[in-house]
Amino acid sequence: MKTINFFEKKSYKVSKLFPSTNFKNNNIINNVKTLAAADKNDLTFFDSPKYKSQAKKTKSKYCLTYQNLANLLPNDTEKIIVKNVLYELAKALKKIYPFADVDYPDISAKAPSKKKFPSVKFCNNVLVGKNVKIGKNTFIGANSIIEKSVVIGKNCVVGSNVVIKNTILGDNVVIQDSCKIGQKGFGFIPIYNNNFKIPHIGKVIIEDNVELASACTIDRGSVDDTVIGKNTYLDNQVHVAHNVKIGSNCMIAGQVGFAGSTVIGNSVSIGGQAGISGHLKIGDNVKIGGGSGVVNDIEDKQTVMGYPAVPLREFLKNKKK
Amino acid sequence: MKTINFFEKKSYKVSKLFPSTNFKNNNIINNVKTLAAADKNDLTFFDSPKYKSQAKKTKSKYCLTYQNLANLLPNDTEKIIVKNVLYELAKALKKIYPFADVDYPDISAKAPSKKKFPSVKFCNNVLVGKNVKIGKNTFIGANSIIEKSVVIGKNCVVGSNVVIKNTILGDNVVIQDSCKIGQKGFGFIPIYNNNFKIPHIGKVIIEDNVELASACTIDRGSVDDTVIGKNTYLDNQVHVAHNVKIGSNCMIAGQVGFAGSTVIGNSVSIGGQAGISGHLKIGDNVKIGGGSGVVNDIEDKQTVMGYPAVPLREFLKNKKK
Amino acid sequence: MKTINFFEKKSYKVSKLFPSTNFKNNNIINNVKTLAAADKNDLTFFDSPKYKSQAKKTKSKYCLTYQNLANLLPNDTEKIIVKNVLYELAKALKKIYPFADVDYPDISAKAPSKKKFPSVKFCNNVLVGKNVKIGKNTFIGANSIIEKSVVIGKNCVVGSNVVIKNTILGDNVVIQDSCKIGQKGFGFIPIYNNNFKIPHIGKVIIEDNVELASACTIDRGSVDDTVIGKNTYLDNQVHVAHNVKIGSNCMIAGQVGFAGSTVIGNSVSIGGQAGISGHLKIGDNVKIGGGSGVVNDIEDKQTVMGYPAVPLREFLKNKKK
Repeated sequence: MKTINFFEKKSYKVSKLFPSTNFKNNNIINNVKTLAAADKNDLTFFDSPKYKSQAKKTKSKYCLTYQNLANLLPNDTEKIIVKNVLYELAKALKKIYPFADVDYPDISAKAPSKKKFPSVKFCNNVLVGKNVKIGKNTFIGANSIIEKSVVIGKNCVVGSNVVIKNTILGDNVVIQDSCKIGQKGFGFIPIYNNNFKIPHIGKVIIEDNVELASACTIDRGSVDDTVIGKNTYLDNQVHVAHNVKIGSNCMIAGQVGFAGSTVIGNSVSIGGQAGISGHLKIGDNVKIGGGSGVVNDIEDKQTVMGYPAVPLREFLKNKKK
Repeated sequence: MKTINFFEKKSYKVSKLFPSTNFKNNNIINNVKTLAAADKNDLTFFDSPKYKSQAKKTKSKYCLTYQNLANLLPNDTEKIIVKNVLYELAKALKKIYPFADVDYPDISAKAPSKKKFPSVKFCNNVLVGKNVKIGKNTFIGANSIIEKSVVIGKNCVVGSNVVIKNTILGDNVVIQDSCKIGQKGFGFIPIYNNNFKIPHIGKVIIEDNVELASACTIDRGSVDDTVIGKNTYLDNQVHVAHNVKIGSNCMIAGQVGFAGSTVIGNSVSIGGQAGISGHLKIGDNVKIGGGSGVVNDIEDKQTVMGYPAVPLREFLKNKKK
Repeated sequence: MKTINFFEKKSYKVSKLFPSTNFKNNNIINNVKTLAAADKNDLTFFDSPKYKSQAKKTKSKYCLTYQNLANLLPNDTEKIIVKNVLYELAKALKKIYPFADVDYPDISAKAPSKKKFPSVKFCNNVLVGKNVKIGKNTFIGANSIIEKSVVIGKNCVVGSNVVIKNTILGDNVVIQDSCKIGQKGFGFIPIYNNNFKIPHIGKVIIEDNVELASACTIDRGSVDDTVIGKNTYLDNQVHVAHNVKIGSNCMIAGQVGFAGSTVIGNSVSIGGQAGISGHLKIGDNVKIGGGSGVVNDIEDKQTVMGYPAVPLREFLKNKKK
């Protein structure tokens, strides 16, 4: 897939971004990416030993990190040692991507021309931004807004009052009324009376055959992307935070919430109102009971329930006591 | 009340729908209904012993069921024995109602004519579909969409950014901003990489004097209807799944969720963020504490709390341990 | 800040409102306010010993109350002794403010004139009511509705599909897509088949630098105001009920719910899906774990978790048992 630039990007040499660090090679920073995704001229960041295996293998030559983590990075990666990795990352992002920290609504969005989209069925009052691509036989419901550069596949059905931005949708996707997709996630550096908003330069990727029921909110990624895998179905009012990756063939019931950066496997089923904490790894074929609060990683094929969630057998035993 | 056809229906003889079954009487299937609601030429289904008392009394002459449940049906009901009742039901529904499995937005909806609705107060940018009926002195807020064949009573106040489809509203109903009513529920047959969506041919019935606060989502029924009884009030962000029936004079606080097919009695009060599992029966005058997770039937006049919810006395005793 | 009248007000002498009470001074009621906020010609109400310290100091000369609380009020406050304070209050409010009990959508809202708002950036299909004020360099997203008399500060970014009514927004506020702000809260006197809706004459005040993520619902106050303090950030799908006051510099994660009249201190952080009961006082610098159910007041600097929420140490000890 060709890279789409949802956000205006500015060009900086690394020494301009971090003037108090001495660099051996003062190159232009191409982009900002995670340890795993970064190429040599991408800036990356390493702020927790949790990610040390990715750190070892990163291709990035420029990494923001802490003094005590620096030796876990490759020798030829230049270390930018700081006191607050996320804050310095946020400030660099704000320089490179000046407009990704606030969701300025797309003022260019207007009624679509029949000529440009001859095989798309638009209901009344639809607004479409610049460079939007929509596949054949796709429906777009009334009052929906498709912001600039969004890509929507063929045979999709997008309901009414939907807003989609910074997103790539596959084919045969169904989005029910009032979903909000691609908005900035909940990320900022807390500063007294004046928080620093973390620019969100990621996007949302929704794969083929996905169905989102009404009033779901799917935040775009911060540095990474938010992904919903093939043939996964979400019920009403589900909240998916930034950078979450949900696998394929999952069933997510109503009012479930996912905190940021959690990775869900394939064929996972989650009962209504369950909550999944951030930065977790949930395996394949996991079943999570309704109302559970998941705070730990879960291995493949486990069934868990409770707050905090424990294996079902344990949950039932505890209840008998 | 005269039957309204929200969905285009096709006509099939029963032998065309189920060619591998031999029928004594090869009639045209009139409709698809629950065991209790079906008349003789309606197709019905019986997939759990939970519904055996309704099975005994069904008037339907054509019933999808399992081998081991077949003898609980009346002698003169022809049994269509299958391996997956819901899947065969879904496939038959898809043939009879080809457009009820996806919420295609109503492309016919357009600005209402003053002539047709002389006593309705429309704000700006309202869209109204074909055959919509709206009673006297009703307000419809800006940007709201009333899809084809919806019926709204008199003296109602519908807020802004509301979407209503496949729904019948009584008189004096208040719907606050951004509610989504009548969309397809969360029902499908899980199939690897290509789930089979269950057509939802039911509707939503909202009785007189109901009030729905902002951003509620009320799914329509699958084969049955979803019903909210007279003078029941829902707070913000409540999720009501397909086929749920809520009685009259109930108070449902914010962010409560109801899973599918649950039946709630009259004068029930439910605290914020409580979750009610599917296929339950909650009696009259029940009180459910905020944040509870209800997984069992509850008899009349009980007060319950906890996860899973237990009688209040038991909940308090357990907390003291 | 100059008082804004969001609701049409009628003038009554106190004896007209309560004809069965004998008054020493039969003055015109100026407004209806809480014990703490009322001035001498404002009607107030005192229905729980919880508020006795405010009762002692009220400046109001007319107070609805119960016989057994009357002696806690100042001598020169005339007591209006009733059997149901809230019901009598609601009936008086309905007389004084005949249109505050139902959210009639603002039929006057229409496309804004460039001349009136030369420095505001409006996307397509925005509707703006009468007497709205919007500060310099503020963006208003497509399909958003700003109802009559709303005040929005400068440098704000309001997303798409947002509805704002009865609200005052500070500067540099960010409101993401689909938020609903200022609607009537969940307040009524339960009456069989015909509840009496409590008029909501309060407003929503959102201070400088606040950020609300997508699909939040912020109800206006009933008699008091709902307030979100400076630099507080809310994640997606948060529900804030009437009269809630959230301090400054708070972080509220996704799907949190606040019941009515609760007061949250400054620098409070609340994890996803937590629920806070009504009429509580949460101190400064409190941390509330995700999924918790808070049912008691919390002192400054506490960390709590669980359902019901208890100090973290206790929660962890209980889990080990």
